[in-house]
Amino acid sequence: MSTNDTGALVGLVMGSDSDWPVMVEAAKALEEFGIAYEADVVSAHRMPQEMIAYGENAASRGLRVIIAGAGGAAHLPGMLASVTPLPVIGVPVPLKHLDGMDSLLSIVQMPGGVPVATVSVGGARNAGLLAVRILASGADAEAEQLRAQMVDFQRRLRDEAHAKGE
Amino acid sequence: MSTNDTGALVGLVMGSDSDWPVMVEAAKALEEFGIAYEADVVSAHRMPQEMIAYGENAASRGLRVIIAGAGGAAHLPGMLASVTPLPVIGVPVPLKHLDGMDSLLSIVQMPGGVPVATVSVGGARNAGLLAVRILASGADAEAEQLRAQMVDFQRRLRDEAHAKGE
Amino acid sequence: MSTNDTGALVGLVMGSDSDWPVMVEAAKALEEFGIAYEADVVSAHRMPQEMIAYGENAASRGLRVIIAGAGGAAHLPGMLASVTPLPVIGVPVPLKHLDGMDSLLSIVQMPGGVPVATVSVGGARNAGLLAVRILASGADAEAEQLRAQMVDFQRRLRDEAHAKGE
Amino acid sequence: MSTNDTGALVGLVMGSDSDWPVMVEAAKALEEFGIAYEADVVSAHRMPQEMIAYGENAASRGLRVIIAGAGGAAHLPGMLASVTPLPVIGVPVPLKHLDGMDSLLSIVQMPGGVPVATVSVGGARNAGLLAVRILASGADAEAEQLRAQMVDFQRRLRDEAHAKGE
Amino acid sequence: MSTNDTGALVGLVMGSDSDWPVMVEAAKALEEFGIAYEADVVSAHRMPQEMIAYGENAASRGLRVIIAGAGGAAHLPGMLASVTPLPVIGVPVPLKHLDGMDSLLSIVQMPGGVPVATVSVGGARNAGLLAVRILASGADAEAEQLRAQMVDFQRRLRDEAHAKGE
Amino acid sequence: MSTNDTGALVGLVMGSDSDWPVMVEAAKALEEFGIAYEADVVSAHRMPQEMIAYGENAASRGLRVIIAGAGGAAHLPGMLASVTPLPVIGVPVPLKHLDGMDSLLSIVQMPGGVPVATVSVGGARNAGLLAVRILASGADAEAEQLRAQMVDFQRRLRDEAHAKGE
Amino acid sequence: MSTNDTGALVGLVMGSDSDWPVMVEAAKALEEFGIAYEADVVSAHRMPQEMIAYGENAASRGLRVIIAGAGGAAHLPGMLASVTPLPVIGVPVPLKHLDGMDSLLSIVQMPGGVPVATVSVGGARNAGLLAVRILASGADAEAEQLRAQMVDFQRRLRDEAHAKGE
Amino acid sequence: MSTNDTGALVGLVMGSDSDWPVMVEAAKALEEFGIAYEADVVSAHRMPQEMIAYGENAASRGLRVIIAGAGGAAHLPGMLASVTPLPVIGVPVPLKHLDGMDSLLSIVQMPGGVPVATVSVGGARNAGLLAVRILASGADAEAEQLRAQMVDFQRRLRDEAHAKGE
Repeated sequence: MSTNDTGALVGLVMGSDSDWPVMVEAAKALEEFGIAYEADVVSAHRMPQEMIAYGENAASRGLRVIIAGAGGAAHLPGMLASVTPLPVIGVPVPLKHLDGMDSLLSIVQMPGGVPVATVSVGGARNAGLLAVRILASGADAEAEQLRAQMVDFQRRLRDEAHAKGE
Repeated sequence: MSTNDTGALVGLVMGSDSDWPVMVEAAKALEEFGIAYEADVVSAHRMPQEMIAYGENAASRGLRVIIAGAGGAAHLPGMLASVTPLPVIGVPVPLKHLDGMDSLLSIVQMPGGVPVATVSVGGARNAGLLAVRILASGADAEAEQLRAQMVDFQRRLRDEAHAKGE
Repeated sequence: MSTNDTGALVGLVMGSDSDWPVMVEAAKALEEFGIAYEADVVSAHRMPQEMIAYGENAASRGLRVIIAGAGGAAHLPGMLASVTPLPVIGVPVPLKHLDGMDSLLSIVQMPGGVPVATVSVGGARNAGLLAVRILASGADAEAEQLRAQMVDFQRRLRDEAHAKGE
Repeated sequence: MSTNDTGALVGLVMGSDSDWPVMVEAAKALEEFGIAYEADVVSAHRMPQEMIAYGENAASRGLRVIIAGAGGAAHLPGMLASVTPLPVIGVPVPLKHLDGMDSLLSIVQMPGGVPVATVSVGGARNAGLLAVRILASGADAEAEQLRAQMVDFQRRLRDEAHAKGE
Repeated sequence: MSTNDTGALVGLVMGSDSDWPVMVEAAKALEEFGIAYEADVVSAHRMPQEMIAYGENAASRGLRVIIAGAGGAAHLPGMLASVTPLPVIGVPVPLKHLDGMDSLLSIVQMPGGVPVATVSVGGARNAGLLAVRILASGADAEAEQLRAQMVDFQRRLRDEAHAKGE
Repeated sequence: MSTNDTGALVGLVMGSDSDWPVMVEAAKALEEFGIAYEADVVSAHRMPQEMIAYGENAASRGLRVIIAGAGGAAHLPGMLASVTPLPVIGVPVPLKHLDGMDSLLSIVQMPGGVPVATVSVGGARNAGLLAVRILASGADAEAEQLRAQMVDFQRRLRDEAHAKGE
Repeated sequence: MSTNDTGALVGLVMGSDSDWPVMVEAAKALEEFGIAYEADVVSAHRMPQEMIAYGENAASRGLRVIIAGAGGAAHLPGMLASVTPLPVIGVPVPLKHLDGMDSLLSIVQMPGGVPVATVSVGGARNAGLLAVRILASGADAEAEQLRAQMVDFQRRLRDEAHAKGE
Repeated sequence: MSTNDTGALVGLVMGSDSDWPVMVEAAKALEEFGIAYEADVVSAHRMPQEMIAYGENAASRGLRVIIAGAGGAAHLPGMLASVTPLPVIGVPVPLKHLDGMDSLLSIVQMPGGVPVATVSVGGARNAGLLAVRILASGADAEAEQLRAQMVDFQRRLRDEAHAKGE
């Protein structure tokens, strides 16, 4: 798993390395926009103290968005959201049974006070794109430039969809 | 429905004014953090052109985050996300039947390319708090100050929860 | 994807060309009845403006029924129905996860005022046949002739089913 | 239950008179557009022969669209569709348990060859409006006039939704 | 498909010959108990009149139990139950999507007055065994002998299960 | 709870006396047809030995059909079916949560070898009517007479439904 | 909320004091068996560090079983299980929407390595009884005595159920 | 299937030998901790008397925990729990249809009085680990030693997860 710790703006974490084939799509989306990120396995259930520490330190380490993927009783996104003020994006990873419905409900149905920005089952690419949108929502010049990139990306999406219809 | 068009950073829209009793919680959360917002009914199905225009102009009008609530075949959040580069937060509003499961799936299961940051069924308060986190994720001083407010908010949440256990 | 723009009565659209293997069955059904149609990719999320334009112009371009297939957070049928007075038939396309249940609910659970005539998950053939029934419901001679064709079709269905039991 | 047998274009039937509080909304929608209809209880399970006869004679009696509401193991819309060439619109009526999910699946999941145009759980108003759209999709002047009425209706929907946002 | 019209006590019908690989297990169970049966395709949707006739004549033709398998919007068992006083056993056949949940609900959720004895998704073998139990519940000597056979069958089931544990 | 032990043909049992308001409808249906029955609380989980004994002795005590209602992890119908050769009818009783879906699946999804004739959620009336149909399926004169009663009952159902439509 | 910190064997915790009306049934069950317990609000999301600390110290503080109730994205039981070697019993608390299905899946679908002993939706009484069974499963005299109490309890359950049937 | 009857502390039973590929993971987990166990097929539905006897004798035979796996209408765990004072762990085994949701609900939704400690769909490994935790929760030295082993196991889990992230 590639890891980029220098100047990473997005922390991309997952409960198990078996989630990587799903989560790599988030990494790819970030790379398309030139966003520095780090990727790591941070299991809520197997290394809870490290997980808590990861969330507590995320903002001070310079991360600005966290993307967390997990499956089944997927507690990673919600637990991270409880110890960081950063926006946390949750990706429900589908496991062998129940087709990701358990992952989705475990991530999205958070109690009042602790939001997780949930994307579709297996929707890691959209998690990456949502992170870009968040980084692009700022008031500074860098954000404005990123927003222009996103507008451009949306134009290409349209053109490609249009081309398919011809 | 209160509307704040001057300097609003968050656009709070919903498919119908019957969604307001749910969506007002997002407004309250924003107010707790002193975030200027505007609230409006923008129906994907009954005023589609206006809805598209709302999304297209959101960024240039100075909005930085959109919160969209809708129920049933809830198309508003996803359609707005398709015409703006801003992060869009979707709130599944539960209707009379199916307990919001239709709303949830219609909002969260977006195709690759167009993310919606989905919160829980009826979770408008968390939508407001997620908007705050997004605004607080910026690199500038204002964001940093908002992030400190969020850390403070989380501390109060903890203290209140703690107090209930005594 | 074959396209027939001359005198098409039915507009057959889908959110992505990956939906074609499902949607082609609607085209085949229309062909069995000699109904002119056009087929196109019109994505609600990737080309929203074109999608709105498609719906707005459908009636004046001579289309009399629209068939729209989409998967996941399937917004295409409902959005088209919001900008055309024509009957819109929605086909829930099953995607990799959730077996089309998300597609079905996103299409069928439309709010009051904007109906979508929904068929079964993956039921594109029935969408084509429903378009034929709609065209055959008219008061004119052409409709009456088409209705006779449908009665004939139903007789053949019965005979084939009957033959299988022998 | 009001019944209009003279010149009815739409046959509005339901499995039980207990479905009337739901189905009356279809009748109201038809009345708003001045469409003549008849309303009757035609139970697939308690009067199957009459139900079959109703479907078989519907077209020759001058009906052009059938709206059928039923709950639970809702067989009425599908059975009528199997004995008429007319378009049949199915309304899933929610019963005491399962919130209409059984009704929805029993109506929408029709086999290839026999389509039912399904609307939302309890969506009788949309069933009426869909019938109007079908009648308005014809090639003749009457249909054109009805289509103009539908465009007007959609404009009023938009204006009302717009007004609610102010 | 084998058919046994002479002295059949059980009518084994299905909506489509594609259901046979599932339904053949009912036939095998009946054969294990030496019960004469007939097997046929009787589609509720493609040959509704024949289906009604089949049900109406079943008792007078000497049938004593009907087993009906169908998938999706599975109307065959319920429709037959509405036109015969015989016990009707319904087998939910799983189709390509929704894993038989639609078939199950369409068969089991019958309205008051018209029962269908529903077995598990794909549970044709149990349908056959239930038919045997019904035939074995009679007051006459033949039924008593069949009941003894069933007791014997249950003993063998136990012995086989027991053997597997050793 | 009324109990009729003399000459009962149907054993009506339930897991808890709180199921009686649902199950009484089965008793009423049996009474309408003059079928002698006994009613009892026989809990699979709280009195398992008595439950097993009830099932083992049912046939020899003269019962010919068992109706068993239970909710949640509803094991009563299936366990009785495993110790009796009689047909067992299962009624899924809806509890406070999950609307009877747990009860339905716990009753209907029986393994091969041990069928339970399942009716709808809360469908105790149909359980009673199914018991009548089973008793009426016999070869003897009494059964034939009961079958005629059932035909008559179905005629009345039809007439009442017909009357409601007028 | 009553708290018993002296010699408590069971730690009864919940995510919010609004869960108490459900969770009090666990406390009552423990009291019936004379088991010392402590009850506290320990929110996974609002006081994550305290929650982790609670789990880490549970065994050394003398607790032998933890009962944790939570609703929605219910992370408390699983997170506690990840930081204690004690058996953790999870109670899915039903919230306003989705009837506890989200709570159930969030608790029961734990990844390999970290089990949670899940009981039914709202099944706090059974959580208490399961804790008793666990304490009664030991090899020592105290456990044996508790096991005898459980056997006695089961006898009373049976007698009460039996009495209801008379 | 390996069977260890000498000094077994855990009884590992399943409804069918086809469940063994799932249930073997429980056996492996027990072996990792050196826990003596016995494994057997004990079908609730095919050998109900033996099943009841197994449960009744479990405690006196020296078993201290029962693990029971079953699929579909999974009655084995609940029935055993009704005849033993021991803690019973239920493993929902996924069958061909419905992906284990039927198994899960049939096991977890037990009525008040008779708890089953349910683990995830197919979660046999966790069932084994839960049995270890239960045995390790005792007051004696052996339990304490086992608890230390569990702490060690959790440390290894963490280290392995940690290593995967590097």
